[in-house]
Amino acid sequence: MSVLPEVLAANETYAAGFGDLGSLALPPARHFAILTCMDARLDPAKYAGLSEGDAHVIRNAGGRASDDAIRSLVISYKLLGTAEFFVVHHTECGMEFFTDDVMRGLLASSLETAALGEDGFHDVGTGPGSTEGAYVDWLTIADADQAVVDDVTRIRNHPLVPAGIPVYGYVYDVKSGRLVEVEAATSIGAAQ
Amino acid sequence: MSVLPEVLAANETYAAGFGDLGSLALPPARHFAILTCMDARLDPAKYAGLSEGDAHVIRNAGGRASDDAIRSLVISYKLLGTAEFFVVHHTECGMEFFTDDVMRGLLASSLETAALGEDGFHDVGTGPGSTEGAYVDWLTIADADQAVVDDVTRIRNHPLVPAGIPVYGYVYDVKSGRLVEVEAATSIGAAQ
Repeated sequence: MSVLPEVLAANETYAAGFGDLGSLALPPARHFAILTCMDARLDPAKYAGLSEGDAHVIRNAGGRASDDAIRSLVISYKLLGTAEFFVVHHTECGMEFFTDDVMRGLLASSLETAALGEDGFHDVGTGPGSTEGAYVDWLTIADADQAVVDDVTRIRNHPLVPAGIPVYGYVYDVKSGRLVEVEAATSIGAAQ
Repeated sequence: MSVLPEVLAANETYAAGFGDLGSLALPPARHFAILTCMDARLDPAKYAGLSEGDAHVIRNAGGRASDDAIRSLVISYKLLGTAEFFVVHHTECGMEFFTDDVMRGLLASSLETAALGEDGFHDVGTGPGSTEGAYVDWLTIADADQAVVDDVTRIRNHPLVPAGIPVYGYVYDVKSGRLVEVEAATSIGAAQ
């Protein structure tokens, strides 16, 4: 059964209590942006205390500093005035549970959802698959803290990101809801 | 003044009331994913009625079906079992207020935040800038509904996205909080 009716009903309720949120300005009122993972357990508005209008939120698989995330961050500061960036990955991220080779093999086998067993993902589909997965860098994560350091480093060193923007590196603990600083990442942002 | 202390204080409050959220499973409980804009006024958990653990949320500048958004959607369905996708753009999107040429000119001029006047963005920085912006497709939006159609079409036709996944196209109205269907987009998803 589709989730569509539930989503639209929830939206009706939200819109009915919208109040004066319709008068919010386009630029983020609190002048910052968060890059974080798409993971369903993460609600950045809740874990970082955001109200509508406060901050840009950029999310992808892993919360990685992909070219597209950097496109978004550059638009965020250059056109809309954000002045601080957060990179927030999290514990138990799905991106730690596979590699490019695994993903490419699974997609070549079928385009149906794989099963996750004790020893990783297994394809249970009947095909057809696609070899297009071989041309994608899936941006998997081998070491959680290092991935935050890598992403903060990439943003910090990007030629379109000015040195004056602090870039903070954190890991969100899905068991406790707490943001834990990756000091080696934040210090990259602070050093410049 | 940095927002960091405020964000960490809000996170302490959230974590203190975390309750049994720490037992949530990795795969989204409601088996769907939303691709939407990073715009600060949008809170997808609120506008679509999501609790922690429910759905993947992918966000970038414009809510565009970039290569990175598709990477995330493919991981979402292939490894974590989502079975429906929403593309949700919004009214008054910043991506409608500039072009690649404008952005490239602004970045070449300086890496400081531009000012938005009646006739568009103006650079007020003193440089130096960077010509790196010329190598980025900024994925600007000329027509709001058409951009939803384009993004749904790209996802629908991508070789790594199976035909069985419905792809719904919506525009969120920032004045009312309502999701308005872009019928021409949703029908692309439904037709296959």
